[in-house]
Amino acid sequence: MSKPSIPSGTRDFSPAVVRKRQYIFNILRNIFELYGFQPLETPAMENLVTLTGKYGEEGDRLIFKILNNGLHTITKESEKEKLATEWEKVLSKAYSSPTVTERALRYDLTIPFARYVVMNQNDLAFPFRRYQMQPVWRADRPQAGRYREFWQCDADVVGSTSLMNEAELLCIYQAAFYELKVPVTIKVNSRKLLAALAELCGMPEKMMDITIALDKLDKIGWDGVTKELTERGISETGISQIQNIINVTGDNDAKLNQLEALMTNSPAGLEGIKELRTSLSYYGSLAKTEWTGSIDVDISLARGLNYYTGVIVEVVCDSEKVRMGSIGGGGRYDDLTGLFGLKGLSGVGVSFGIDRIYDVMEQLGVFPDQVATGTKAILLNFGGANEEYALQILKQLRDAGIATELYPDSSKFDKQMKYANKRGVTFVLLPGDEEREKGLISVKNFSTGEQKMVSVADCIHMLQ
Amino acid sequence: MSKPSIPSGTRDFSPAVVRKRQYIFNILRNIFELYGFQPLETPAMENLVTLTGKYGEEGDRLIFKILNNGLHTITKESEKEKLATEWEKVLSKAYSSPTVTERALRYDLTIPFARYVVMNQNDLAFPFRRYQMQPVWRADRPQAGRYREFWQCDADVVGSTSLMNEAELLCIYQAAFYELKVPVTIKVNSRKLLAALAELCGMPEKMMDITIALDKLDKIGWDGVTKELTERGISETGISQIQNIINVTGDNDAKLNQLEALMTNSPAGLEGIKELRTSLSYYGSLAKTEWTGSIDVDISLARGLNYYTGVIVEVVCDSEKVRMGSIGGGGRYDDLTGLFGLKGLSGVGVSFGIDRIYDVMEQLGVFPDQVATGTKAILLNFGGANEEYALQILKQLRDAGIATELYPDSSKFDKQMKYANKRGVTFVLLPGDEEREKGLISVKNFSTGEQKMVSVADCIHMLQ
Repeated sequence: MSKPSIPSGTRDFSPAVVRKRQYIFNILRNIFELYGFQPLETPAMENLVTLTGKYGEEGDRLIFKILNNGLHTITKESEKEKLATEWEKVLSKAYSSPTVTERALRYDLTIPFARYVVMNQNDLAFPFRRYQMQPVWRADRPQAGRYREFWQCDADVVGSTSLMNEAELLCIYQAAFYELKVPVTIKVNSRKLLAALAELCGMPEKMMDITIALDKLDKIGWDGVTKELTERGISETGISQIQNIINVTGDNDAKLNQLEALMTNSPAGLEGIKELRTSLSYYGSLAKTEWTGSIDVDISLARGLNYYTGVIVEVVCDSEKVRMGSIGGGGRYDDLTGLFGLKGLSGVGVSFGIDRIYDVMEQLGVFPDQVATGTKAILLNFGGANEEYALQILKQLRDAGIATELYPDSSKFDKQMKYANKRGVTFVLLPGDEEREKGLISVKNFSTGEQKMVSVADCIHMLQ
Repeated sequence: MSKPSIPSGTRDFSPAVVRKRQYIFNILRNIFELYGFQPLETPAMENLVTLTGKYGEEGDRLIFKILNNGLHTITKESEKEKLATEWEKVLSKAYSSPTVTERALRYDLTIPFARYVVMNQNDLAFPFRRYQMQPVWRADRPQAGRYREFWQCDADVVGSTSLMNEAELLCIYQAAFYELKVPVTIKVNSRKLLAALAELCGMPEKMMDITIALDKLDKIGWDGVTKELTERGISETGISQIQNIINVTGDNDAKLNQLEALMTNSPAGLEGIKELRTSLSYYGSLAKTEWTGSIDVDISLARGLNYYTGVIVEVVCDSEKVRMGSIGGGGRYDDLTGLFGLKGLSGVGVSFGIDRIYDVMEQLGVFPDQVATGTKAILLNFGGANEEYALQILKQLRDAGIATELYPDSSKFDKQMKYANKRGVTFVLLPGDEEREKGLISVKNFSTGEQKMVSVADCIHMLQ
């Protein structure tokens, strides 16, 4: 028998990790609910036709496809021949032959959401605000921080063009990272300003080229971007226009005023500026003073996905202790549901990178101490009458809501203590002869080493 | 474009359903934690070799296999030939060719748990108590109440033979169904009594035959079971022995005393009786008086799975309003981890049938009213200065922890009211001119139709 293992790029989540992840999920869930967002869950398997063609050619190749069941029951000669042809198609390119594979694993949460909205459009109240926290699967090459099974967490509003939605999503980011104790900068920009930038270069058709080059500013610096812009056919004058614009400084108001002056001839640019101003003004009305993240208008923010059409946003961790790319992002998109036949529905959404947020929180050490351990106390088992006494105490502690275990066997003291230690609990309770006779219980605090004999009521009080 | 759909046997969970399911999961999670069980999550994909051969031939056929990615990149002639041979194997029987498919979707939570324990045996503190609530996938024919993606929820203890574990799992069942408000009978038996039954018939080798026949008692009655026992080669004397034993009556003590008298010559039988008595005695020490489920020793309880070796248990809903098979079950098993090379680890576990429990709760109408709706109140949007005023109120309500939405556009009154109605909230708040000028807010209760203008503080008080 070979040693058991799990597929490359997947993970078992051990108890402490599940608890910490749950801590993140719970904070996010409570915030989404507070803001009136509703939970949605879609199946892990989608029809392959729902997914193919939605993520580009590269995406099609990275989709995990499920082999149809019952292929071995095909015996009719004509069907076997057809199957052989279909199999050839699977081999010749990343083609989806419904005879061989008609289902696939969820690749993101956006397409299933769009599919769900279209299928349920008559039952939904629009604007529909949903949040969704589920795993997705991609056949990417696994590497540090990149998994084949990973979690996405999205909040979207569809069916409303109001910029109040943008503001509420900014609030959700602020509230979430404040509660998670992760210091962040939330960058905002508008695709309309990027379009204006291309106009100002006299090359409106080059907007995606400019976007792609600018997206690398953090990584390759302005010199690298200049080089890439030149390679992509942007003129020297164009590049200096771009430089002028990404160099605007000051607070958000100051930046927007300078941009307005520079873009005075671009209707798209002026609209983008107006939208950012309105979003930030709504945000100002709703923001809590305690929130610590800074919101920065950043004209170099590009976001890779080409379905964004309006305000775009990205979250980066602000701590010097952490090197990590974006831990969240999103924006306004038009017509996502158009892919499935429902036209004209505008949407805006943000996403939380759960796995990265988890890593950042570990590095910052901001998980509360008690999160990883569930059980508060372990009762040792000294057998016989002491075991009966231990059962009584166990019941009383649980009745008081204290997560407690009784070691199930009256094993050797050392073995039981070793177990308690390995479980990482703070308190060990010792119900021995003396304790039973006096109706008391000895409480040993593992962190201080202190041990004292107290009444059960006092013990409960200590543990609560 | 064809209408979008989801794979047969899968489900989208809409907001109200997600919330009700979360209600169930939360109750179970809190109970597991109170009893010192620890959460585990394993990946959706397992290596196919981990799963094949563990669920019988039928199981092997029902496993969803994932097509290997990158098959289209195979170009070397020799590799192509090998692939063709492997593909033939996939077609000829439900064979797992690692060249074509080397991963598969989780089929249950038990095998991944055993695999996890073996992989992490050096880091775990034994006895290891874990709970796990995750979806599993089976390519079964979908029908009412049977899905291809469904949830399992298991709690197991491995590494302890103490019958205290059996008692704690009975407590967990009682606590859970009490809190879920589902009236239940929890049947208990021991595989050792079933073995004794076969001995008493003079046919110890026929234990599985007797088990399989008895398992159908509820469905086909005693006459049907007699017929099946005869077909399976049990003698008339044997059948009358079985009838004597399954006809023992009275409370659990009375039944166990009668069984003891009948099985006085069977060591296995006497051991089974002793184990049941010990488990029930431990249970008695831990049980809460408020628990309503009845625990019944039922010698006809068989449980299909042949890996059980000791106490077995099954939960059925007790209400006349509901027709539903078992909604939970489990038992003691030996050597599950032996499948992966770790011998001699005894375990005991129970499982909750989440989808069935959900259906039962719907039929009984025991979900609390407020569970399905998240948002407490919706603020209407009357635009301009009133919108600004609405934003202030929105902020105050959220600061007070009340899940609130503001309609994002100043659309027509009717449209906004229709939205609020469809969202199913109880309260609509109307921040109009008069309210703004007076610094008050009108609260309309959708269920009573009542509307009154109150201070924001009073409004918060009403909604809390």
